[in-house]
Amino acid sequence: MKWITGGVCAAKGFLASGIHCGIRKNKTKKDLALIVSGTRAAAASIYTANLVKGAPIYVTKDNLADGYAQAIICNSGNANTCNADGIDIAMGMCDLVAKHLSVSANDVIVASTGVIGQPLSLAPMAEHMAALAGSLSIQGEQAAAEAIMTTDTIKKEAAVAFEIGGKTCRLGGMAKGSGMIHPNMATMLVFLTTDAAITPQMLQKALVLDTQDTFHMVSVDGDTSTNDMVSILANGQAGNEPIEGEGEAFEVFCKALNAVTSTLCKAIAKDGEGATKLLSCIAKGAAAKEIARKVAKSVICSSLVKSAMFGADANWGRVLCAIGYSGAAVDVSKIDVAFSSPVGLVAVCKNGAGIPFCEDTAKDILTKDEINILVDLNDGDQTATAWGCDLTYDYVKINGDYRT
Amino acid sequence: MKWITGGVCAAKGFLASGIHCGIRKNKTKKDLALIVSGTRAAAASIYTANLVKGAPIYVTKDNLADGYAQAIICNSGNANTCNADGIDIAMGMCDLVAKHLSVSANDVIVASTGVIGQPLSLAPMAEHMAALAGSLSIQGEQAAAEAIMTTDTIKKEAAVAFEIGGKTCRLGGMAKGSGMIHPNMATMLVFLTTDAAITPQMLQKALVLDTQDTFHMVSVDGDTSTNDMVSILANGQAGNEPIEGEGEAFEVFCKALNAVTSTLCKAIAKDGEGATKLLSCIAKGAAAKEIARKVAKSVICSSLVKSAMFGADANWGRVLCAIGYSGAAVDVSKIDVAFSSPVGLVAVCKNGAGIPFCEDTAKDILTKDEINILVDLNDGDQTATAWGCDLTYDYVKINGDYRT
Repeated sequence: MKWITGGVCAAKGFLASGIHCGIRKNKTKKDLALIVSGTRAAAASIYTANLVKGAPIYVTKDNLADGYAQAIICNSGNANTCNADGIDIAMGMCDLVAKHLSVSANDVIVASTGVIGQPLSLAPMAEHMAALAGSLSIQGEQAAAEAIMTTDTIKKEAAVAFEIGGKTCRLGGMAKGSGMIHPNMATMLVFLTTDAAITPQMLQKALVLDTQDTFHMVSVDGDTSTNDMVSILANGQAGNEPIEGEGEAFEVFCKALNAVTSTLCKAIAKDGEGATKLLSCIAKGAAAKEIARKVAKSVICSSLVKSAMFGADANWGRVLCAIGYSGAAVDVSKIDVAFSSPVGLVAVCKNGAGIPFCEDTAKDILTKDEINILVDLNDGDQTATAWGCDLTYDYVKINGDYRT
Repeated sequence: MKWITGGVCAAKGFLASGIHCGIRKNKTKKDLALIVSGTRAAAASIYTANLVKGAPIYVTKDNLADGYAQAIICNSGNANTCNADGIDIAMGMCDLVAKHLSVSANDVIVASTGVIGQPLSLAPMAEHMAALAGSLSIQGEQAAAEAIMTTDTIKKEAAVAFEIGGKTCRLGGMAKGSGMIHPNMATMLVFLTTDAAITPQMLQKALVLDTQDTFHMVSVDGDTSTNDMVSILANGQAGNEPIEGEGEAFEVFCKALNAVTSTLCKAIAKDGEGATKLLSCIAKGAAAKEIARKVAKSVICSSLVKSAMFGADANWGRVLCAIGYSGAAVDVSKIDVAFSSPVGLVAVCKNGAGIPFCEDTAKDILTKDEINILVDLNDGDQTATAWGCDLTYDYVKINGDYRT
C-alpha cells in the first residue's frame, strides 16, 4: 500500500467538481460539490444516530436500499434540516443530477451541511447545475473538497493505492469536519471512492467495522450532528476479482480503507473549530476493546482536559477524572498516564497517583501542536485511540455568532 | 414556608466558621470551613458516581454508616484525590476536629475541593485548627461558604423556615460550584443543615428524591467531579415530632429541602466557570418524567447551544439537535421551541420546523443574563427543568491555566 494524491478522484473512473452557486453569501466560498462514477457502483453508508436527521439522510437511505449508486451531490451553507419541505428539496437535488448526467435520480447520494432550520432553495443549484456538471474532471477533487467545507480551515483529503490479486486498486476520500462532531455512528460528512470490485454487502461490512475505530473515535465538541454521513462508492473499474466474502482480499481492502479514514479522522480533529492542537488519546492495557474505546473517548471529550491542553498544562488529574466517569470498568489504582509529543515524553501518574515530574519538560512537550495522551490501564492487552482537539477562545467565538 | 437568612447557621444549634490556613497561596482567600451541630444529628449523603473518588468520600462514607454525624470539615485549594496518603490525610482532618471539639472523629463529614493529584499536607490545618474551632459562631455561615469556594465568584447560600406540627423548623445550605460539574449522582459540594427531627432513613430518602430534580439537573461543563458530595445534617432541635415515615410532615420537609436546593442549583449554574448567563431549559409535554429530564439536560449540556446563548444567537436548530441525540424517545415532528427572558418570549420552532420570528426581539431577549429555553414535546404531561450556563472565552481562560 502506498499513499497517492487525487482524493476522491484517485480511483479510476471518478470525476468531481465544486463551485459557488449562491447558497453561501460569500462568493469566494464554494458551496456545491459533485462526485460521479463513470459506471454504477456498489455503495455503502453509515448515518448519524441523532433522532433529528437532515432531510438528505432519508433520501440517501432510500436511494441506497438496493446497494448501488453512481453520484454524490453535497451542498454547504445550509443543512436542509428541520425544514417542512426538506425531503422535496433533497429529492430535487437528485433530480438535478439526473437531468444533467446519465445517472438515475435514485442512484444519487445527497448530503447537506450548514445551518439547521433555515429554508434551502433549489433555485441557485438549478441555475448552476449545468456549470457544476460541465466542470467535472479528474482534477476536480480539490474543488469538491473545498465546496463541502463549513467552518473547516483546510481541505481534508487522502488516498492510497493497494494490490488485490495482482490488480492495482485505489481508494480515496474527502471529509468535512470542524464542529458538531461527536462519536455516534458516523460523525461528519465523509465521501469515499474506490475502483476496487466488492459487493455492496461486503462494502457495508467493511465500512461498519472500520468506523468503530475511526469516525466513532473522533470528537470535537460532544455534539452529534443531524447530518453526519460516511458514504463509499466502489465502481470495480480496477478489474480485480470481486470481493464477495471475508479473506485475504477483504483484509487488504479494510487496511486500505483504514489508512484513508484514520488520516481523515486526524485531519478533522486537528481542524476542529478553533483548535490549535490535535489530541490523540491512546488507551492501552485494557481488559476489553470496548473499555479502551470508552476510556480514550472520554478523555478526548473532557472540556477540562481540552482546556488544559490549550494552556499546555500537564493537569493529569483531569485525565484520571475523565477516565473515572467514562462508564468503563477500570481499576483506578493500576492506571499510568503520560504525555508525549514529537519533542519527548513525560510520565505524570503511576498506579493512579501523581509522580514527580519536571514542569518545564511537560510544558515543552505540551506546547507542540500534536499531543498524545498515553493511558495504560495495566489490565489486559486491548488498545484504542481517540482523536480530539483543544478547547480554545476561538471555539466560543466561532459558535457564538455562527448563524447571524 | 418563608425565605430567611443564615445559610448553614439558620437552623437551631448549628455554628460555622471559615479561615485561611495556608493550603491556598493567596492569603486573602479562605481555605478551611467548619460546621458543627451542638448535638449529634441524623445525617445523609450522596456521592459522585465517578470511579475516581477523592479520599474524603471514602472516609465520609465510613463515618456515616451509622446514619449520624455532628460536624463537617472542608478545605478548598486541593481535592485530596489520587494521592497515595489521601485516606490518612482525610482521617487526620477528622481527628483534628475531634481533638478541638467534643465530637467523635467518626461523626465528622470530611470533604476537599481543588486540584486533583497534588499532595495535601495536614500541617497548615493542624496549625490553625484551634483558630478555626475558636471562631465558630452563629454568624459564621458566610465565612464557611467563602472557604469552600474554588473558581466560584460568589458565595452560594439559601435558607427557609417552615412548620411541622406547629413547630418552626429551619433548613439552610451552602454550595461550591463553578467547574467540573455534570449531573451524575451529586454534582458539586453542598452542605445542608436543618433542626427538623427526622430519622436517618427518611433523611436519606428525602435527599435522594430531591437530587433527581435538582443537583442531577445541573451541568456547567459535562465533567463529573471526583469529589462531589451533597450532605445534610438534621439535629432535631426544632422539637417537632420526628419524621419516621412518609406523610404530610415528610412532604413539607421535602418541599423546604427543594426550595433550598433548587436555589443553590441556579446559583451554581449562573456562577459556572466563565459564565455570563444562567440557562434554564424547561422541557414539558413529555410522555414520561425521564424523557423530560433527558431532553432538558441534553440541551443544557450542548457546547453549541451554550456558545449560541453566549452570542445571543437564537440558533434553535442546535436545541433540536441536542434533543435528537439526548437518547430520549421523542417525536421530532411534534416539538415546539421558544426562548424567553424577563423582557419577553419568542417562539422559533413549531412541530419540529422553523417559523418566522423577529431577530431583533430574539436578540433583546437573549442579551439578558437569565434565559429560559422552552421545549414543548407535545406528547404528555411530564415536565423537568435543567440548569446550565453559557460557554464563554473565560471558561477556556480559567481552565487553560487553573493548575499552574
